Amino acid sequence: MKNTTIVIFGATGDLAKRKIFPALYRILQNNSLGDIICVGVAFDDVNSHQMIEAARPFISDADNDHWKRLQNCSYYKKMDFTISDDFDGLRTFVEECEKKHGIHNGNRLFYVATSSQFFSSITNNISHTGLIKRLPEHHLFWHRIVYEKPFGHDQISAHEINECIKNTLNEFQVYRIDHYLTKEVVNNIAMIRFTNVIFEPLWSHQYIEQVHITLSESIGIEDRGRYYDLSGAVRDVVQNHMLELLALIGMEMPEKLTGDCIRAERAKVIEKIRFEDGLLGQYESYTQEKDVDPASRTETYALLQFFVDNDRWAGVPFYLKTGKCLDKKETVIHIKFKQAECLLLHGCPLESNWLTIKIAPDAVFLLTLNAKVPGVMNQVMPVGMEFCHSCLFGVQTPQAYEVLLEEVMKGEQSIAVRFDEIEYAWKVIDTLYAHNLPLYTYKKGSSGPQEVEQFEQKHGMRVKT
Amino acid sequence: MKNTTIVIFGATGDLAKRKIFPALYRILQNNSLGDIICVGVAFDDVNSHQMIEAARPFISDADNDHWKRLQNCSYYKKMDFTISDDFDGLRTFVEECEKKHGIHNGNRLFYVATSSQFFSSITNNISHTGLIKRLPEHHLFWHRIVYEKPFGHDQISAHEINECIKNTLNEFQVYRIDHYLTKEVVNNIAMIRFTNVIFEPLWSHQYIEQVHITLSESIGIEDRGRYYDLSGAVRDVVQNHMLELLALIGMEMPEKLTGDCIRAERAKVIEKIRFEDGLLGQYESYTQEKDVDPASRTETYALLQFFVDNDRWAGVPFYLKTGKCLDKKETVIHIKFKQAECLLLHGCPLESNWLTIKIAPDAVFLLTLNAKVPGVMNQVMPVGMEFCHSCLFGVQTPQAYEVLLEEVMKGEQSIAVRFDEIEYAWKVIDTLYAHNLPLYTYKKGSSGPQEVEQFEQKHGMRVKT
Repeated sequence: MKNTTIVIFGATGDLAKRKIFPALYRILQNNSLGDIICVGVAFDDVNSHQMIEAARPFISDADNDHWKRLQNCSYYKKMDFTISDDFDGLRTFVEECEKKHGIHNGNRLFYVATSSQFFSSITNNISHTGLIKRLPEHHLFWHRIVYEKPFGHDQISAHEINECIKNTLNEFQVYRIDHYLTKEVVNNIAMIRFTNVIFEPLWSHQYIEQVHITLSESIGIEDRGRYYDLSGAVRDVVQNHMLELLALIGMEMPEKLTGDCIRAERAKVIEKIRFEDGLLGQYESYTQEKDVDPASRTETYALLQFFVDNDRWAGVPFYLKTGKCLDKKETVIHIKFKQAECLLLHGCPLESNWLTIKIAPDAVFLLTLNAKVPGVMNQVMPVGMEFCHSCLFGVQTPQAYEVLLEEVMKGEQSIAVRFDEIEYAWKVIDTLYAHNLPLYTYKKGSSGPQEVEQFEQKHGMRVKT
Repeated sequence: MKNTTIVIFGATGDLAKRKIFPALYRILQNNSLGDIICVGVAFDDVNSHQMIEAARPFISDADNDHWKRLQNCSYYKKMDFTISDDFDGLRTFVEECEKKHGIHNGNRLFYVATSSQFFSSITNNISHTGLIKRLPEHHLFWHRIVYEKPFGHDQISAHEINECIKNTLNEFQVYRIDHYLTKEVVNNIAMIRFTNVIFEPLWSHQYIEQVHITLSESIGIEDRGRYYDLSGAVRDVVQNHMLELLALIGMEMPEKLTGDCIRAERAKVIEKIRFEDGLLGQYESYTQEKDVDPASRTETYALLQFFVDNDRWAGVPFYLKTGKCLDKKETVIHIKFKQAECLLLHGCPLESNWLTIKIAPDAVFLLTLNAKVPGVMNQVMPVGMEFCHSCLFGVQTPQAYEVLLEEVMKGEQSIAVRFDEIEYAWKVIDTLYAHNLPLYTYKKGSSGPQEVEQFEQKHGMRVKT
């Protein structure tokens, strides 16, 4: 297997130390992808040793052998992402590192873990210096680039970055990543939908009444105030993770369950998403958080109603709900089926059928059905049929960023978002913000603003208990 | 609540002591249906005390108080079911017993637990003496009659009994019972199908490939040689229990989930059942069993292929399999769905989806689906989603005969078989026997004759493992 050079932009940042270096450590430990060398790049005054040591607390069981291997193949280069000359220096530096490790014509993976304002500059510059090249699809070696979310700030900025990328690289070299797309259960959604004959006939407005997608967090914004206050809940998780979940539920059957086909179908759904109604929230004392504007109107909570304007989903509301400092931590999708015609003399109306897909903390598929109450002739009660992914396979499935890096190195694109998909998603978000939704406050540790109840009643949302 | 007189024909028989008297004991214990008195009738020379004591070993935890109550309200009358005069004597006896207990114009329940050759004679005679009357549906009190299976021996004999009944009673007074129809899970089949919107769209030849209904017994014929050798596996369990299960799976949606509507729909399906292919078996040493003809060709095993000739089930084979002395004891229905279109690059063809309804020994609904193999992008494996009725509600649901008697006393007819339903079922069985199916021997404790494998291959039966 070919050696791979991994260049990380933003190597002293939070993501690098918490996620990327620990993932590289695991990959080295498993020795699953050949040898790697790693060049970290940032503006900070640190050395290679300091850069890599910052990640050590986030690897719970590092052994000395593998840790030394990671140290020995990791290098740090200080630079400014906006100065072209610095990229010439980077090129020289990378080539020296490669030479030292005997790498010639190896694979190169660029991981851009910076604010998206630098995406175009970095892309342009590494292209101009020849560090990354527009290579054909089945070349002797590959050059690929990963962009962390958020990819832009609205449709215009995302489009500008995409234009820059299009001018320098082929789309199959580009990974606009969303680590949610590497989660086992999220991947399982498409698998479950399309490898089981029993779901397709049920999967439309004919039998589905509502879809609820919830991403609740119990933690606050922690030390991410600077980023979060500019972003807000909608840009932080709705634009990416939650619209991707909606797309996986909503998409048509792809030709094959491969990256390209799935991306194409996801994009088609996202193009048809229409924002209809919603409300925003901000938890009490948010404006006193570190690095947050004391007059901030940034939302930390959102409850949003969308429709998908195509034949399959005509009239079916998709409710997306997310927030910080809520009463629980969970990511879950509830699909509510329409009611069965009531054939019982008593006990009508019946409870609806629900398909629940729990993504976090547990990975569970749960089907809620009506069954007979024992010993009583004509009465039913709801019962659950459950398949617990995390119980069956253990919680020790590989971590998201490890899977992510491995899949990028294998060239698997289903974990990444296509150029049009991301622009459609931003368009939805732009429309949403244009509505000037009301912003309500809510108590930390509550289930959200009190006004939610009224919203749910107005729309006949029946929340799964 | 009105008092009820229960007259049991065949009161010294196996069924009476093993099932009917123990059920009456429970009903007394629960005090759920008012006071009862019980008149047992048979040809044997026993007294009331002996009749009732024969049942005592079959009540595991009888307490003295309730046992004395049962003794004090139970009477025995010796008679010959073929002699009219004896029925005059019975009438006087019943009326005396009722007088003694202060019953005037009470309800009467006649339980005919004899060979079906006596059904017409008993029915005619109790009608002529006025013990049972053709009463209107919502009368001050009721007269009802229960016939144990088997109801006749073929279509002609069943029709003759039905004609006799029709001339003396209204159909709503008549309970041709099948204790399988009182089993919780069997009842649950209609409930699950029709109170959950997700099943109806899947429930046809469009998505279902095959249906397998299995009733395996590990025991032999025990001391029932005289009855069994005349009957055989097909008349013993296929004509009644198994065709009823087929009907519950196959029937159209009833107008309401009530006795009359369900019976009407069951009858429609059974009318359309067509026998197509099959084989019979007899376990080694069967002909040496007590009361069995040494040259007997009676089957103790059957594997039968049926079709239901209507729009819903066009081309879907229903396989019914039953036998004595097999390697396991279970009653189970497996519904095999057609395969999903294979969208995977590898790992095709896919495993089919199965809905498994276990009726005995455990009561379980199990849906077998494909789910993603963790950590591998494009591979699926079968996993189960299960709802265990017996785990959830405990195994201490009421016994079949207790439910049966209670439902008869309440006037619930879904547990009973309508006149036309039973004749259609016999017609299916008559046709089957006209085919002169091959009879193979098999080893006790095996899974049946070796020839079964060839049959399964010929028909592309894929047995659920």
